[in-house]
Amino acid sequence: MNVSQNEGALLHITGETRVYVVIGDPIAQVKSTHLYNKLTAESPADVVFIPMQFSTENFERAIDGLRAFKNLAGIIPTIPHKTRMMEVVDSFSDRAKIVGAVNSIRVEPDGQWVGDMFDGIGYVNGLAKCGHQPENKSFLLVGAGGAGAAISIALADAGVKRLRIVDLDQAKVEKIIANVRAHYPDMEIDTGPLVPAEFDVVANATPLGMAAGDPLPVPPELLLSGQLVTDMIMKPAVTPLLVQAEAMGCTIQVGYEALLGQASANMAFFGLVS
Amino acid sequence: MNVSQNEGALLHITGETRVYVVIGDPIAQVKSTHLYNKLTAESPADVVFIPMQFSTENFERAIDGLRAFKNLAGIIPTIPHKTRMMEVVDSFSDRAKIVGAVNSIRVEPDGQWVGDMFDGIGYVNGLAKCGHQPENKSFLLVGAGGAGAAISIALADAGVKRLRIVDLDQAKVEKIIANVRAHYPDMEIDTGPLVPAEFDVVANATPLGMAAGDPLPVPPELLLSGQLVTDMIMKPAVTPLLVQAEAMGCTIQVGYEALLGQASANMAFFGLVS
Repeated sequence: MNVSQNEGALLHITGETRVYVVIGDPIAQVKSTHLYNKLTAESPADVVFIPMQFSTENFERAIDGLRAFKNLAGIIPTIPHKTRMMEVVDSFSDRAKIVGAVNSIRVEPDGQWVGDMFDGIGYVNGLAKCGHQPENKSFLLVGAGGAGAAISIALADAGVKRLRIVDLDQAKVEKIIANVRAHYPDMEIDTGPLVPAEFDVVANATPLGMAAGDPLPVPPELLLSGQLVTDMIMKPAVTPLLVQAEAMGCTIQVGYEALLGQASANMAFFGLVS
Repeated sequence: MNVSQNEGALLHITGETRVYVVIGDPIAQVKSTHLYNKLTAESPADVVFIPMQFSTENFERAIDGLRAFKNLAGIIPTIPHKTRMMEVVDSFSDRAKIVGAVNSIRVEPDGQWVGDMFDGIGYVNGLAKCGHQPENKSFLLVGAGGAGAAISIALADAGVKRLRIVDLDQAKVEKIIANVRAHYPDMEIDTGPLVPAEFDVVANATPLGMAAGDPLPVPPELLLSGQLVTDMIMKPAVTPLLVQAEAMGCTIQVGYEALLGQASANMAFFGLVS
């Protein structure tokens, strides 16, 4: 999947085109519509991906409106709608149930809404595509929000050897650890000091690095040459953490790889790849 | 406005893109989304036009959902929603009031929905663009449905000399005539025999010609060489009536010209042309 982020996608949208909506609030930061449109523009699928912004206060009426929308093909929920979409889909995968959120809904021919969760799988797909198989590796994951939760489950599912989760919000960390332990009892998972040297991979799943002047999520001087350092942030494309990591001799993986990995899983879920 | 019907439009759809929806049921026949996307693809406007299908039974919930949709830029209602959209817009033009329907809604920055009606104007714009100014000309209009009603008002507004309306449904004909007379008391308007020879322009606003085997709306042997014969039908691009008219030595105007003329008016209404 080799996709330019900047060029347009050649789209021929008519009344026969089925529509995927990326729902969120705010919405301006969304780039995935463009990625999906590029990926499908050359395929025989007559579809388009568009952004749709509505607030949590208007969630029910917006969803009710989408239910009436006959040429709706699917929904990609982003912040803040991922968790609440669990309540309105007709069914969801075990994976979505474990994470507690859906980030992809396919509308079946009979109108049923089927939900799944690919946030963590996207990250793992990105690792694999870049030659970093996660099996038997040790991961230090910084950030226990929605992305951290999804990544933790996906890493457990991928067979990592050890996972440490660090976040200022200890309750969120404990919740993820309990959830992973419930489903992957043999997995070595803990929280503790932020000591990158003990791990093969250091993964940032916090928003630190999006805004100018953010503190770094990991002290770069603690990174080791040869370690893999990954970020989930898409903008900037290369975060200050990754810049520093590269200077320390680390291998880096940018956030866009996780989006590509997620797109790959989503496209298969939507039936848009053969 | 020189627009290919077949190529794709180069679109870069992100979370900053504002969305126009063409609403109808059925929807598969809609081509205008493609036209509008082509027209705006090269402009600085970051917008996309998509099809949205919902039934009359689901009209209220679909509209309520659209009201929650923060990045909605506008709505282009087509059959069967044009009349009912009058009830849900916050304001509409005198022109829309006279026709009794809206076919274009602009969402203002404050969220207000402003409706207008360009169906007839599109036809008149198409005539003018092709060098057939309607002023002081006489028109024989066949078909007194929604298109016929809108065209009648637009022709009256454009200052035609004489208009005859013919339709099997006499009640619809009388309603249009009464409506035109109420707003344009000096206009010569009647119904009567289908005698093309008395008129400068013969206009088909019936659906006859869309389906193979349809009877012709006007007996072609009654057409005169040099007359202008126009059709509103878009598919086929050149209807059997127009084929016969051309064989009789008439000048013809295809339905796509009316769509282009309407697009031109709509683009201005949406603020998408400078």
